Amino acid sequence: MSDKVDFKKRISVEQVEEGTELAPKFDEHGLLPCVTTSAKTGEVLMLGYMNAEALQKTIETGEAFYFSRSRNILWHKGANSGFVQKVTDLRIDDDQDSVWLSVELVGKEASCHVGYRSCFYRSIPTASQRKGADDELIFREDEKTFDPKAVYGDVPNPTKL
Amino acid sequence: MSDKVDFKKRISVEQVEEGTELAPKFDEHGLLPCVTTSAKTGEVLMLGYMNAEALQKTIETGEAFYFSRSRNILWHKGANSGFVQKVTDLRIDDDQDSVWLSVELVGKEASCHVGYRSCFYRSIPTASQRKGADDELIFREDEKTFDPKAVYGDVPNPTKL
Repeated sequence: MSDKVDFKKRISVEQVEEGTELAPKFDEHGLLPCVTTSAKTGEVLMLGYMNAEALQKTIETGEAFYFSRSRNILWHKGANSGFVQKVTDLRIDDDQDSVWLSVELVGKEASCHVGYRSCFYRSIPTASQRKGADDELIFREDEKTFDPKAVYGDVPNPTKL
Repeated sequence: MSDKVDFKKRISVEQVEEGTELAPKFDEHGLLPCVTTSAKTGEVLMLGYMNAEALQKTIETGEAFYFSRSRNILWHKGANSGFVQKVTDLRIDDDQDSVWLSVELVGKEASCHVGYRSCFYRSIPTASQRKGADDELIFREDEKTFDPKAVYGDVPNPTKL
């Protein structure tokens, strides 16, 4: 299938919410957020962003493409690490300004550049779990799934202060 | 527990990624994205946004607060609909610019203002599922969980074109 994906013009709330036309809304930077979960475990792996080209390529190829805000480029997930994400389901939300990608992981069961399985490897204590204003984050993964230095080498760390 | 939640200053990549200090990064609008999943089914229910106050209130109360971009106000989820979200786990990601909320739903098993269980009630065909450029979205929920008119009355629809 090589037909280019066609995004429709947003005409009405009814069309966007109740229709079957793909009419995504990108923000002022040309991006929309993408939640990526593991098809195997259901765990949220990462929160990424897609521009129009990334969404089109994900739809066309069945592999996850994102837009890297730190590197300012189209990003084929796994191009550096080998941890390609194969799409099992791609959902779009009611007002079509975010998507949910369910993926199978190729290679290691890992998606986080720090080395963990999920990017969401720490919990914030809430309500009755709290002790006070200086509560510490709680690690939910005991060990890293891979060694980021070995996998990424000299690729700059995407985390920005 | 009434101690106000204290956000730490972001000092280093090491602190943000590997540390136990809560040092969230809000975007130029003062927001960060929040993925909300059902603790019962694991399904992604919605993608919302939190400002500092919404994140603080979520942490303090154990109920989900968001910032409504369409209404430009702090939004206690369920205040209008009665569908309050009780937090079972709140995670933050590697670079601390997004959060993942697992919730139990109070009242109906519903989170979407259109009436569906999840906001992500439609799939986009990908790769071998595609027929062509005019592919239609596929509904994944057969019927609405509640009647939005009965629940929301005259509250304006948040979807914007």
